[in-house]
Amino acid sequence: MRQLDLSLYLVTDRECALGRDIVDIVEQAVQGGVTIVQLREKQCDTKQFYNIAVRLKECLKPYDVPLIINDRVDIALACDAQGVHIGQSDMPYQVVRRLLGPDKIIGLSVSNAQQLEYANTLDVDYIGLSPVFDTTTKKDTSKAIGIEGVRDFSRKSKHLSVGIGGINVSNAEQVIHAGADGISLVSAIISADKPKLAAAELLNIVKQTKNNM
Amino acid sequence: MRQLDLSLYLVTDRECALGRDIVDIVEQAVQGGVTIVQLREKQCDTKQFYNIAVRLKECLKPYDVPLIINDRVDIALACDAQGVHIGQSDMPYQVVRRLLGPDKIIGLSVSNAQQLEYANTLDVDYIGLSPVFDTTTKKDTSKAIGIEGVRDFSRKSKHLSVGIGGINVSNAEQVIHAGADGISLVSAIISADKPKLAAAELLNIVKQTKNNM
Repeated sequence: MRQLDLSLYLVTDRECALGRDIVDIVEQAVQGGVTIVQLREKQCDTKQFYNIAVRLKECLKPYDVPLIINDRVDIALACDAQGVHIGQSDMPYQVVRRLLGPDKIIGLSVSNAQQLEYANTLDVDYIGLSPVFDTTTKKDTSKAIGIEGVRDFSRKSKHLSVGIGGINVSNAEQVIHAGADGISLVSAIISADKPKLAAAELLNIVKQTKNNM
Repeated sequence: MRQLDLSLYLVTDRECALGRDIVDIVEQAVQGGVTIVQLREKQCDTKQFYNIAVRLKECLKPYDVPLIINDRVDIALACDAQGVHIGQSDMPYQVVRRLLGPDKIIGLSVSNAQQLEYANTLDVDYIGLSPVFDTTTKKDTSKAIGIEGVRDFSRKSKHLSVGIGGINVSNAEQVIHAGADGISLVSAIISADKPKLAAAELLNIVKQTKNNM
């Protein structure tokens, strides 16, 4: 599995779930059109992370939507996820590739020109352009790269790219128009009153924008 | 590698290192007689954890002292550590064994009779009796099992056991005398002015006590 549709990339955050079950929200969002899901857990213990990962993997199976685990290669191996997303503070790409093998998806966050240049030397499957806009969902992020950053980085990248950070229905078109292969979102879907509808609306914007390019 | 000498089991905590380099402290302690080392990192990011693990693995190699990684199977695989120590909030034993393979060391923390009974059904390599005494090094621990707990649990355990929590030169003898195969320590060595001397003194107590039993 290394064929990727990054069009609508959902990243989880249980803090944004407004008390609802995260697996349930993801399933609704996938029914609305989410094409790939990243499980991101920065606060919980390993047992809880593992249990959620196993449930999510099982939930996504019938939809044929890949599950990517943020940072934790052990969790990905344990639940046989389709891949791992690493940031600049996670394990080096080469080590992650060695542990996961050649067939798994590895994504890498890129926040500046130097990181982009380095990513181009690696056999990653996609890069996350992060953050596109300022966001409160993720702490300790780098300076926002803006739409100009998306344009510049996606042009120079030899990999597929997905924009992340502060993306919603009002700016999704701009991100795709600037050259990203997809948009990645957290709260715009996880906190939505109706995650399925929110996902459908966002996917529609991505498709329409790609069709008009 | 599944032959274990748990006599003097050092668990790291950089917060106890008083600003000194943790790898340097561990090396001094190993020169003093530490027989097994667990790298425990609960606060740092994965990149930093990985980098310390690689340095520590390299440092311990000439001493033939096994390196155990707390919780993180991915870090253990990445640095080819000799094993992983799991607590009750980490991944299930069976999953860890599957990821690590049959030859690696797996230790499991046990804090009460029910957990001990369950550990006896598993092919773990040792159990950590935790905490023996109240301790401030590790947060969110269970109720101290005391010397009577060590006596009771080590008698009922089919596995090797090591006591941990609040152990130092003043009570090490009691812990071994009660039946533990070794003592596990954090601050008594990591915060010591002379880690090598502290380790030598503690190992001497363990050896003397075992000789007199």
